[in-house]
Amino acid sequence: MEPLILHEYAASGNCYKVRLTAALLGLPIERREYDILKGETRTPQFLSEVNPNGRIPVLQAGDRFIPESNAACFYLADGSALIPKDRFDRADMLRWMFFEQYNHEPNVATLRFWLAFVGEEALTEAQGAQIPARRAAGDAALKLMDAHLETRAFLVGDRLTLADIALYAYTHVAGEGGFTLGDYPHVGAWLDRVAAQPGYLPMSA
Amino acid sequence: MEPLILHEYAASGNCYKVRLTAALLGLPIERREYDILKGETRTPQFLSEVNPNGRIPVLQAGDRFIPESNAACFYLADGSALIPKDRFDRADMLRWMFFEQYNHEPNVATLRFWLAFVGEEALTEAQGAQIPARRAAGDAALKLMDAHLETRAFLVGDRLTLADIALYAYTHVAGEGGFTLGDYPHVGAWLDRVAAQPGYLPMSA
Repeated sequence: MEPLILHEYAASGNCYKVRLTAALLGLPIERREYDILKGETRTPQFLSEVNPNGRIPVLQAGDRFIPESNAACFYLADGSALIPKDRFDRADMLRWMFFEQYNHEPNVATLRFWLAFVGEEALTEAQGAQIPARRAAGDAALKLMDAHLETRAFLVGDRLTLADIALYAYTHVAGEGGFTLGDYPHVGAWLDRVAAQPGYLPMSA
Repeated sequence: MEPLILHEYAASGNCYKVRLTAALLGLPIERREYDILKGETRTPQFLSEVNPNGRIPVLQAGDRFIPESNAACFYLADGSALIPKDRFDRADMLRWMFFEQYNHEPNVATLRFWLAFVGEEALTEAQGAQIPARRAAGDAALKLMDAHLETRAFLVGDRLTLADIALYAYTHVAGEGGFTLGDYPHVGAWLDRVAAQPGYLPMSA
């Protein structure tokens, strides 16, 4: 594969997904850090050269750029065992990855960012007012995962896929956003199974 | 392919994506309507039998269910020309589909739903307070698409893919949410190109 560069903010779960996928596949990846709290992904240079959407992560493969964490993971894993060969399972994997970006990340990840990185006292009034609704929606997403994982070892089929990686990233640090992972025991057992995978890389690595 | 049933609310752009994909592929699909304004996707039966997330669309393929509109489209189109064969283009298609669910739909589609279906006078105070931020974010998403489409006929490569279908669905009715499509001429020309595709099906069909 061409040289891989990850444009990232290391504490972001979205960026960690890409690092974890690369690690599980044994792919070396160069890391370039941007401080999103200082607006380093909104500079004219970043917008014109890396991502017009002003967000990280962006995976650079050679001289081409892939924004959106789950698309970057798909690029890395395409053709590997992290993407099911079965047509239904492949769509089902994407189902969980879209669920992650629509139902899970905006709630579980946003509350972590607001409470553990920005700080509750520094939130705008509009952000503070959204906390209860995001808390309820985040808990609903975790509850849905818990029910699904009650009878399954992994989210899709019987082995690890990108669906697990995508949802592991922010779920395993949901406590930093004030969620109580102990309320979701099947999620907890699944987190342990993901962390036991050969090649697993912790978020702090 | 096994018999296909779309569990849907016809006015939803997310449901229209699945119908449009099936139409472009020439796949027959049975439609089952649920009134989301009456809570018909939150009944115990729907939650246990169709989708525990209480949302439409859900694509039923035989006796299996695929929630999440973009995953359902991927299932239908898997192996067809609507998904690029090139590895980078395939990931780039998914990049736009995740952008759609994260940056576009929560703003462009939500304002349409609130203003054209729920009605501004029936919104909660918290919803009303979110209108300016969602308007700005929706316009930012449309502006990003417009700049990308200035030099391209379609979002990825040089032909129609699922990325175009996913973003066409709510973009072409963005006016119903108070967005001014005339501000985005390259988006307008692209909408015309999508609508000119053989097999195209309008949202109202």
